[in-house]
Amino acid sequence: MQPTRVVVLAGGFGGARMAHGFALLGEHVQLSVILNTGDDLELHGLHVSPDIDTVMYTLAGIANNDTGWGVRDETWSASEMLGRFGEPTWFRLGDRDLATHIARTRRLAAGVGLTDATAELARALDVHAQLLPMTDDRVRTQVRTAAGWLDFQDYFVRRHHADDVLELRFEGIESANATAQVRAAIDAADVIVVAPSNPFLSVAPILSVGGILARLNAVRAPVIGVSPIVGREAVRGPAAQIMHSLGEEPGAHGIAMHYAHAWPGLLDVLVIDSVDAAEADAVNATGVRAHVTGTLIGAQKERRRLAQEILELAGAL
Amino acid sequence: MQPTRVVVLAGGFGGARMAHGFALLGEHVQLSVILNTGDDLELHGLHVSPDIDTVMYTLAGIANNDTGWGVRDETWSASEMLGRFGEPTWFRLGDRDLATHIARTRRLAAGVGLTDATAELARALDVHAQLLPMTDDRVRTQVRTAAGWLDFQDYFVRRHHADDVLELRFEGIESANATAQVRAAIDAADVIVVAPSNPFLSVAPILSVGGILARLNAVRAPVIGVSPIVGREAVRGPAAQIMHSLGEEPGAHGIAMHYAHAWPGLLDVLVIDSVDAAEADAVNATGVRAHVTGTLIGAQKERRRLAQEILELAGAL
Repeated sequence: MQPTRVVVLAGGFGGARMAHGFALLGEHVQLSVILNTGDDLELHGLHVSPDIDTVMYTLAGIANNDTGWGVRDETWSASEMLGRFGEPTWFRLGDRDLATHIARTRRLAAGVGLTDATAELARALDVHAQLLPMTDDRVRTQVRTAAGWLDFQDYFVRRHHADDVLELRFEGIESANATAQVRAAIDAADVIVVAPSNPFLSVAPILSVGGILARLNAVRAPVIGVSPIVGREAVRGPAAQIMHSLGEEPGAHGIAMHYAHAWPGLLDVLVIDSVDAAEADAVNATGVRAHVTGTLIGAQKERRRLAQEILELAGAL
Repeated sequence: MQPTRVVVLAGGFGGARMAHGFALLGEHVQLSVILNTGDDLELHGLHVSPDIDTVMYTLAGIANNDTGWGVRDETWSASEMLGRFGEPTWFRLGDRDLATHIARTRRLAAGVGLTDATAELARALDVHAQLLPMTDDRVRTQVRTAAGWLDFQDYFVRRHHADDVLELRFEGIESANATAQVRAAIDAADVIVVAPSNPFLSVAPILSVGGILARLNAVRAPVIGVSPIVGREAVRGPAAQIMHSLGEEPGAHGIAMHYAHAWPGLLDVLVIDSVDAAEADAVNATGVRAHVTGTLIGAQKERRRLAQEILELAGAL
């Protein structure tokens, strides 16, 4: 039997867990993950791709599950020394993690694209899924707050996403194009999954890259989203807070509304959590079919179960 | 009283110990160390300056005295991960050490010269001595062996300096010039010390940089060398072996002969170890005055004692 070709659109935290669920289904699934790179940054002269790395470490089985980022059994010697040298340390890089950025930066400096560099790193860590940066072009998410426009990690990490988000922009997005690998993965997909990632910060950059949204709208494969909001709060991160500051209603219904307005016709189904079952009718009324189930996927068993359930859902469409 | 202005020409191991001796004399000495950069290499896209770092870590009091290189209380997480990514790991870089190379490389990439970058790093580690790369220009020592021309660290670290050295060259030396800081330090020196470093691999590159040898020959300050050979063996490294393969006589007298032939008139005094006292007359016969004393300076007390003795010797000249 041919494996089911699954494409997951993913940010870091929720994206990694959702992608992991499909990876855990083994040979039944051929997994491609299209990854947000709007969160990328340069630190100490190194190219850091937080979302790529969170997904890569998770699929490699070396993620730090306590923090939700970085590598487990990490040490912090370089970071301490970098601090002595006056380098910024608000974005914490462990020693193992640092090696990833060094290996990536060396490849990029040698003229290798981010897609090929990522493939090499993932292969070295025995990751079987295809990890695809949304583009090889430079895109940088910026956030307007009362303090003005901030670089994404400045807002997110340094200022602990405490500012109200007034506006978002993806610097460079006008000239960013989907790679051949991203296009091929979408075209060949049997099912497309929008991970329970932040729609503003993780999904929007991906869908804004030239060629991706049009292609997703054109494919026949079902597109199934998973709500990152459970019981009016984001499982992690500032999604609910951003919805609030942008005048949207935080909740499963609000997520459905947001998708329906921002990207009409994209989602066939929105998977919402059982605690939000009462919002199913309101979700359905937006034109996106609600599917109610458990969406908390901290445990591997749950990741795998949700992935399996999404495949069955897609098969029934 | 004005401090005595001491300039030390130094490689890594012996250079660090000798420079440390003068640093330990505190405010009585204003220390500048002119450092060999022919051993520098690029690893993982980072600029590594082994001799600079050995001296810097030693003067900062964070050197690993067991290995003679690197930082003490080191961890190796990044190195292990770099290995997984297929990066070369024969030149071992600890996590703290790696931070130095990252901080240096970022500065160089921003257009800061190696001299200024080194000054910033040394200041951050509370090193009071002026650490001066011999040049800001790129020089790379290469070694001809039966296996052909090898990059220095390939010969020295990867192949454990096991090959016979047939010839040496310093790639880039023709267009390498002494920095303004090196020139000023030499011109202002009260005493110039050639550390017990390898004359072929550490001292020769320094003396080959445009402007340095001529300046040393012109200054009135005494130039005092310390033999790196004790009892016909190098305290560390391949000096004796190289002398042998180049047809020179390994020993205190051989060192004096080498200096007298390669750089006639440079040394006023050669400090040789007590175990080599019998060679003093032969050393004197080369035109370089022998001074016999203990030159094993593993212990801080001995480093300081030898530095003090050299200052007294210089004062008496």
